[in-house]
Amino acid sequence: MALSALLEKFSVNSEISQASAGYQFNHTMIRVKNLQASINFYTQVLGFVPVCEHINSDAAFTIVYLIRAPLASIPDDDTARQEWVLRQTGVLELTYNHGTELKPDFHYHNGNDAPQGYGHICISVPDVRQACKRFEQLNVTFQKRLTDGRMKHIAFIKDPDGYWIEILQPTPLNN
Amino acid sequence: MALSALLEKFSVNSEISQASAGYQFNHTMIRVKNLQASINFYTQVLGFVPVCEHINSDAAFTIVYLIRAPLASIPDDDTARQEWVLRQTGVLELTYNHGTELKPDFHYHNGNDAPQGYGHICISVPDVRQACKRFEQLNVTFQKRLTDGRMKHIAFIKDPDGYWIEILQPTPLNN
Repeated sequence: MALSALLEKFSVNSEISQASAGYQFNHTMIRVKNLQASINFYTQVLGFVPVCEHINSDAAFTIVYLIRAPLASIPDDDTARQEWVLRQTGVLELTYNHGTELKPDFHYHNGNDAPQGYGHICISVPDVRQACKRFEQLNVTFQKRLTDGRMKHIAFIKDPDGYWIEILQPTPLNN
Repeated sequence: MALSALLEKFSVNSEISQASAGYQFNHTMIRVKNLQASINFYTQVLGFVPVCEHINSDAAFTIVYLIRAPLASIPDDDTARQEWVLRQTGVLELTYNHGTELKPDFHYHNGNDAPQGYGHICISVPDVRQACKRFEQLNVTFQKRLTDGRMKHIAFIKDPDGYWIEILQPTPLNN
């Protein structure tokens, strides 16, 4: 369906955007049990860069912002970088409550087990087969391999807390 | 802390990114009870544009991708638009299971009530006070007004399913 037809179907008025000019979908926040384990995963497997860390000692939590961006594009100065990251889109925020990694039975809820709500983040990759091969080599846990189920063009991997991450490529898969 | 010090603190090797070149943090998916109500909210309040809809009649669900982008930058052709949206970052995916809006007691889990996991998405805005004034006029539900609690520079609003949305501005608030 053409874009105009889609907007009409959902009664979307294209003039609305004036009032929200400059709004940016900045980040998505998930809580993680073990901050270093999550940072290892998001940097080594998915190529994110941690760009800001806020430690709140009184409330015993730390947040870290990560983004996929070339290092050369990221301001080195701390204040400039904090302002910069809040102007970006595609930021991931990890919230770590101090000490959770020391509790063997502690775990966060991934949103796909009951009760459901949040589903996943998605990383689009140039070549989904090559990416999945790489994840296998890195011993990443799969929720769904390309060969599982009916949707052969998407995979789901899991981060250290069991949050699902969809993996797909923008173009159709060649047979 | 300088960026280089942050990378060192978390043992991040900046060479890693070669293997994940071209990966993109494409979207975040949440399930919604009433698709039209959610589209009204994300378009009218936050200025998103619905750009793709996939209806799966067999499995009785629909997904809609929304993005904040100028209409003129979005391909009109359906196939081109689907490929385009999967190359972007800052996309929101709504998953709607058919008929949930007809069940009075049905609701999704927002990740902040127990059991916790997912937290929120964040919209950064040019002027957080002006944005909050606008949300009040639009009768948006607040989880936390700027004046509530100790963090006076951020607000949280709620979408129709009760998912939290952080609102902040990149620059410090003037008194």
